[in-house]
Formats: sequence, C-alpha cells, structure tokens
Amino acid sequence: MARRNEHSKAQLRTLAIAAVRAIVAEQGPDKLSVRKVAEHIGYTPGMLYHVFACLDDLILHANAVTLDGLLQRMQAATALSPAEALQTMAGQYLALAREEPHLWQLVFMHRMPQAAAVPAWYQQRTLQLFVLVEDQMARLSAQQDAAAVHLAARTLWSSVHGISVLAVENKLSIAGDVDETAMLQSLIHHYLASWARNSVNGDDA
Amino acid sequence: MARRNEHSKAQLRTLAIAAVRAIVAEQGPDKLSVRKVAEHIGYTPGMLYHVFACLDDLILHANAVTLDGLLQRMQAATALSPAEALQTMAGQYLALAREEPHLWQLVFMHRMPQAAAVPAWYQQRTLQLFVLVEDQMARLSAQQDAAAVHLAARTLWSSVHGISVLAVENKLSIAGDVDETAMLQSLIHHYLASWARNSVNGDDA
Repeated sequence: MARRNEHSKAQLRTLAIAAVRAIVAEQGPDKLSVRKVAEHIGYTPGMLYHVFACLDDLILHANAVTLDGLLQRMQAATALSPAEALQTMAGQYLALAREEPHLWQLVFMHRMPQAAAVPAWYQQRTLQLFVLVEDQMARLSAQQDAAAVHLAARTLWSSVHGISVLAVENKLSIAGDVDETAMLQSLIHHYLASWARNSVNGDDA
Repeated sequence: MARRNEHSKAQLRTLAIAAVRAIVAEQGPDKLSVRKVAEHIGYTPGMLYHVFACLDDLILHANAVTLDGLLQRMQAATALSPAEALQTMAGQYLALAREEPHLWQLVFMHRMPQAAAVPAWYQQRTLQLFVLVEDQMARLSAQQDAAAVHLAARTLWSSVHGISVLAVENKLSIAGDVDETAMLQSLIHHYLASWARNSVNGDDA
C-alpha cells in the first residue's frame, strides 16, 4: 500500500491502538478484526504483525489505554478522606463503564488464547489500580494486615464490578426498580463501616 | 418429519426446553440456534414456532429451569440463622455458576429483542429469588423498612454476581491470588454487620 512507509513502527503502533479503540467503541468488541484495524489505518494486515505479536497483544495495549484512563479518574479522588475516596473511585468505575461501555467490555471480555498468561506489563497496569484502593483501605484502618487489605480491596472491586456490569447491560430492571448509585453507596458504606471497626477490636471474622 | 405427530404440544415444549439446555450446556450460549434445537428433537424449525413465539421465548423458558434450580438450592438454607442463610445462598449462587457456567451465562447474556419487556411470568420467577433474600434481611433486622430491605437485597445480589462472574470467567487471576469464597464471606459478613446494626440505632447512612 502507498502509505506503508509513511510511519515509524512507534507511530504505527499508536495508530493501530487508536484504530482498535475507535472500532470497538463504535461497533462493539465482537466486531473487531485485524482486517478492520488494517483497513482503518490504511495498511495491510501483514504490516500489523510487524508491530504486534497478534491481535491479543494489540487488544491488551488498547485495554491498557482504558485502564490508564480509569487510573487517572481514580487518582483524582485520593485527596479525599478514605471512605469518600473509595466511594468516588467506585463511582468513577461505574461512570467509565457507562461512558465507554464497549471499551470497558473489551477489558473484561478479552481472554488470552489457549489460556496464555497475561503479560507482566499488563498485570502491572492492573496492579496500579488495586494499589490505589489498597492505599485507601490502609488509611482507613492502619491495624489491618496486608492480607486483609488485599482481600478487602478485591472484594470491593468484584462487588463494584457486579453492580456496574448489571447496570451497563441493563440487567437491573429484572430486579425491580433499583438505582445502581444507591447500591454502590450502600455497598461501600456498610462494608467499610464493619471492616474498619473490626480491625480496631481485632475481630477479623 | 416422521416424528412430527408423536408428541403433544406440552411434550414438545418440554423436549425443546431440554434441548436448549443440552445444547447450551455443551456448546455455550453463542452456539444456540432454532435449527439446532429442532434437529436435536427431530422436528422442523417450523414446528417449534407452533409451541414457542420465538427463540427468545424458548430461551426464557430454559432460563426459568435454571432459576428454579437456584431457588431450590437457596430454599434449603432458610432454616439457618439469617446471616448463615445469606452466606449459604451466596455460596449456592457461586456454586451454580461454577457447575453450570454456560446455562448460568445464558440467564445473564440473553437480551430481549428490541428491548422488549421481560414477560410477567419470568419477572415473577426472578422475584421469588429476591423474596428469599429479603426474608432473611428482614429476619436480620426487623426495624429496616421495605425500601431498605429492597435496596440491601439487590446490593448483595449484584455484589455476589460480580464475584461469581469474575470467578467463572477466570478474571480474578489478574487481581493477584484471591479466593472467591473468601471474598463472598467477607462481603456478606461486613455488609450485614453494619447494615443490621445501623437499623438498630436508626443510622441509615
């Protein structure tokens, strides 16, 4: 193709990642293909394999952009009190899912081929998000040990994820009239109220 | 086809529902089609439309069987104390997701066409499940009003769903080593501990 030599490898990677995000945002994760990405940026599919190992590698890099956006949203809350920060971070998680449902779904729908391990650089990207939550949990209760903070942060994330996925996929109506923001607030308020108190009197039940 | 007249409408409905469940359990929700269901029971697709309005109608009836199984699992816990009952019910939800992941996914992946309303008979099926949870919440705290019980039951369900969906889709490994059963126990223990106490001192925050 005529444009083949117009871009450096780095530029081509950036173009391809942006193309994946544009295609998924518009058409949904199921409609993504190497051919569409190549067409979108005016290169041959073969050229993409010069800069990405495979479509999964490309998808992980597109997902990393989504996670970086979430990290930025959540970091803005760290100046608040721990409980307020965690409420705000949960709200940002739901807001991202609402504002970019297809890109958000791509993060959770994507599976590595043949159950291959997620690369370390991507694991590190997700770990940054948990560290943000764990820092607030630790501020909330200095007496909880690392294992308790680890479990609590992941329990809150999984629970917030459940409320968000049911809200974004319009599955809450089956449960009768219920507001996802009220559920988020109830979840975090009550979980933290007991979790922080237990740490003080040493009850880890 | 030769077998066309072998079964009554009621028998044909039962056969078709069983066929949907067998196909989905084996091949996954994405592989389901009217043609496959018809082939599975030895009838023409046309015959299926004599007993079901559409594939969505058939899927809802297949999902109802899954929900009835969940209801039975959960009802077995009602003899326990409220907190133990809710812990056990959450464990049954996760167990169903683990034991029948494809049938469980069909319940949550299915969308009504053109956002058509879910029929009243199916809404009633799901309501029975929430009533089981609400009864335990009410036992736990007689002073919470119906609105508070409604919100708390749906908050717990959505949270348990989040832990279950991440576990079944093998998305927890990205969060580092974490046990979904420990998360369920932590979620329900801490949420209930604060929720029940707040009802006593009137703090609904």
